[in-house]
Amino acid sequence: MSSSNAIGVFDSGLGGLSAVKEFLHILPNEKIIYFGDTGRVPYGTRSRDTIRKYAFQDADFLMTHNVKMIVAACGTVSSVAGDALEEKLSVPYTGVVNPTAYTAVRTTKNGRIGVIGTAATVGSHSYKLRLQKLNPGVEVFEQACPLFVSLVENGVIHRDDQITRLVVRRYMADLKDNGVDTVILGCTHFPLLRDAISDYMGEGVTLVDSGFETANYAAKVLREQGLLNSDPSLKAPEFFVSDTPEGFESVAGLFLGRNMEHTVTQIDIEQY
Amino acid sequence: MSSSNAIGVFDSGLGGLSAVKEFLHILPNEKIIYFGDTGRVPYGTRSRDTIRKYAFQDADFLMTHNVKMIVAACGTVSSVAGDALEEKLSVPYTGVVNPTAYTAVRTTKNGRIGVIGTAATVGSHSYKLRLQKLNPGVEVFEQACPLFVSLVENGVIHRDDQITRLVVRRYMADLKDNGVDTVILGCTHFPLLRDAISDYMGEGVTLVDSGFETANYAAKVLREQGLLNSDPSLKAPEFFVSDTPEGFESVAGLFLGRNMEHTVTQIDIEQY
Repeated sequence: MSSSNAIGVFDSGLGGLSAVKEFLHILPNEKIIYFGDTGRVPYGTRSRDTIRKYAFQDADFLMTHNVKMIVAACGTVSSVAGDALEEKLSVPYTGVVNPTAYTAVRTTKNGRIGVIGTAATVGSHSYKLRLQKLNPGVEVFEQACPLFVSLVENGVIHRDDQITRLVVRRYMADLKDNGVDTVILGCTHFPLLRDAISDYMGEGVTLVDSGFETANYAAKVLREQGLLNSDPSLKAPEFFVSDTPEGFESVAGLFLGRNMEHTVTQIDIEQY
Repeated sequence: MSSSNAIGVFDSGLGGLSAVKEFLHILPNEKIIYFGDTGRVPYGTRSRDTIRKYAFQDADFLMTHNVKMIVAACGTVSSVAGDALEEKLSVPYTGVVNPTAYTAVRTTKNGRIGVIGTAATVGSHSYKLRLQKLNPGVEVFEQACPLFVSLVENGVIHRDDQITRLVVRRYMADLKDNGVDTVILGCTHFPLLRDAISDYMGEGVTLVDSGFETANYAAKVLREQGLLNSDPSLKAPEFFVSDTPEGFESVAGLFLGRNMEHTVTQIDIEQY
């Protein structure tokens, strides 16, 4: 395996691009190949078996690009298929759960941590189990926030939008009442609601972004294995999707926070 | 073809069950076989080609049950793949667009009709084209309401729920300002928001439910072709889904408005 090979990142859709944004920032020498399963999104409401099958296909597709590491930038996949992927893959793998949980237990001062994610992520208790394995003393409060994904995908994300504020309050009220001082944004869509969530939760609450933590962790793994790319030349990321790429530019700009040179290609994921 | 054969109804997910509710009411002697593509829902945000491919598979699956008529109880499929389905199928077919448009032009008094649906339905202008073909004098105002689907699927539908009311106002304000007296509920999820929409639009505005109009139209077609079932024995509907049926009962109860005896079976829709 050569350090010049790409890092493969995938998500059920385009939410994982919020993690790609962090990868491009933290690992500017790396080539990123991203697969967004836009033809089968969302995973968060599907069954365990379906999510596993899809995740394996997604990883198999990225392996055809000879990637040096695979990242599931998706709370649902990491929660439901993470262990199975780690076992199956011949290259280093990380999901978002473990790196994010690790940071959360180091961040909390009062030992009260909130976890928000899709129904599948929260239903799997993946974050809770990991957090309590790292520190059996922490108390974990979980909340599924299914409407957050729709809000983000429809651009209803501004901190002063009344709908955004009401939905944030609906989902976050119990976590606030329970006095959490740390909240894991356990879905890669949620960083786009960071301002609105932060406004409601208040300054004393730290929001832990799974995309950022995962990019940091991936950098550590690659460094340890001598797989960091030292060639500083600019490498445009490549994006693959399973539905037509129409509309990709505007959504990608939203998640990546900038317009950038890249290619977008549609593939038939059912073949993998 | 025998009149005792079933009517096949399909939708991208479970929204079409709101139409099934109307079929069971209007055609109590008929056996209904429903397929909800829960493994690939939602269609409303996908590309034209993908929606057509999926719709053909859905219809092919229903044909294996020897149905006497196929109904696409889905605004998106009817809008994007309706003509192609009608051409392909060897049994009577109807989507929701034509029957609903027909009722809307007969309902409006001021000739101003609103159409609400998914992004794909509204982007196809299927209702607008049909309405203006039926009566070139009507003015049609279209509005995509993507968040409505999420609200319904997450049960945030009560007329006194502040989130529901705000989202309804956000989407419906332009239609109200434009003085429509008739609104087509162009997505089978939307009848569940009827109360909230009606509260906002006011008593002078008629809401036309695509599921109800389609069931009425199907009854007319079957009557004309001598295919109405005259056997009054109770026939439990059969439901098929493409993801695991877990959670089906509660959602089905929501859409059907009652609990009833039925079977739910998971199938692999990719095989069709």
